[in-house]
Amino acid sequence: MKVVSDGGGPDTQSRIVEVATRLFGQIGFQKTTVADIARELHMSPANVYRFFSAKSEINEAVARRLLAKTEDAIAEIAHQGGEASPRLRASIVAIEQGNAQRFLENRKLHELIETAFTENWPVAREHAQKLNESLAEIISRGSEQGEFHVEDCGLAAILVRSACLRFCHPRLMVECAQDSEPAIDQMIDFCLLALR
Amino acid sequence: MKVVSDGGGPDTQSRIVEVATRLFGQIGFQKTTVADIARELHMSPANVYRFFSAKSEINEAVARRLLAKTEDAIAEIAHQGGEASPRLRASIVAIEQGNAQRFLENRKLHELIETAFTENWPVAREHAQKLNESLAEIISRGSEQGEFHVEDCGLAAILVRSACLRFCHPRLMVECAQDSEPAIDQMIDFCLLALR
Repeated sequence: MKVVSDGGGPDTQSRIVEVATRLFGQIGFQKTTVADIARELHMSPANVYRFFSAKSEINEAVARRLLAKTEDAIAEIAHQGGEASPRLRASIVAIEQGNAQRFLENRKLHELIETAFTENWPVAREHAQKLNESLAEIISRGSEQGEFHVEDCGLAAILVRSACLRFCHPRLMVECAQDSEPAIDQMIDFCLLALR
Repeated sequence: MKVVSDGGGPDTQSRIVEVATRLFGQIGFQKTTVADIARELHMSPANVYRFFSAKSEINEAVARRLLAKTEDAIAEIAHQGGEASPRLRASIVAIEQGNAQRFLENRKLHELIETAFTENWPVAREHAQKLNESLAEIISRGSEQGEFHVEDCGLAAILVRSACLRFCHPRLMVECAQDSEPAIDQMIDFCLLALR
């Protein structure tokens, strides 16, 4: 992503992402062109390219903005005090609800996120990394408090998120929606047993 | 699936599935028509329709045959005696290897299985059910032997397979191939901790 300092650069960049998000939500990210985005902003495509050197960078920026909501929610839970187990549960539930809400609110934006995961975009890897860090923080605190018995909290976070993939993965969540078991609480209970 | 008793019915049925498997592996299941299959067998499409009332039934039958290899391998492990933990590990590894081998040997046949899972075909649900039964048998034996402490072995089997979904799911396996962690043994160790 290019960062330019002239004439309200960051503002223009945010506006491009904002308009792109709206268009992606209306007609889908694959059908939205840089020309469409430029037209909405009353600017030339060349000007959009001053901020994003390719359409794929706009896709990534929109996905990043959408995923940041969940990342921020989990980071907040990680920074709270108190028992680790309920906070670990709340985190997994928040990841699942973030996906579910996006899916229900705007199927086209959800498809962007599904594609980011399926095609392993950098933003999907960064998202996983951020969630892992927050989960590791909670598990680490739980270990200090004697609630968990875990040597490698980073690995434990990866294992918990993998174990809960059916709920945390934007496409699997849709694919497995009709499976009544495991329920998310059953899956989290199972993870807590492994951590204790 | 229609079962007819005249003129070597089951034989003809098997031959249709065999030829369909070969054609699916060569040109993909979506591009293979009932006419293609009939031509290879020197019969009329109408004759193929005596055994399978729709192309989708042939798709299911081919997928069933491919998935049966893994189901049989896991059922055999479940029927063996001995400690439950190594048998549970061997089962998950066998499911992963069944997927990996199919993917490496024939990408087009793997795509059929991916689609069966993505679109939740009956054969995918039956496959999950069979694997769950075998895993439950192993966990149940482990509980009897005092190796595990599990109340609901059927649920525990579902939880273990869900936790290992990244390795057991034909498409996730491909999607997560570049993630170095968790390794399959780390994930299984985590599950064994939860069961003990």
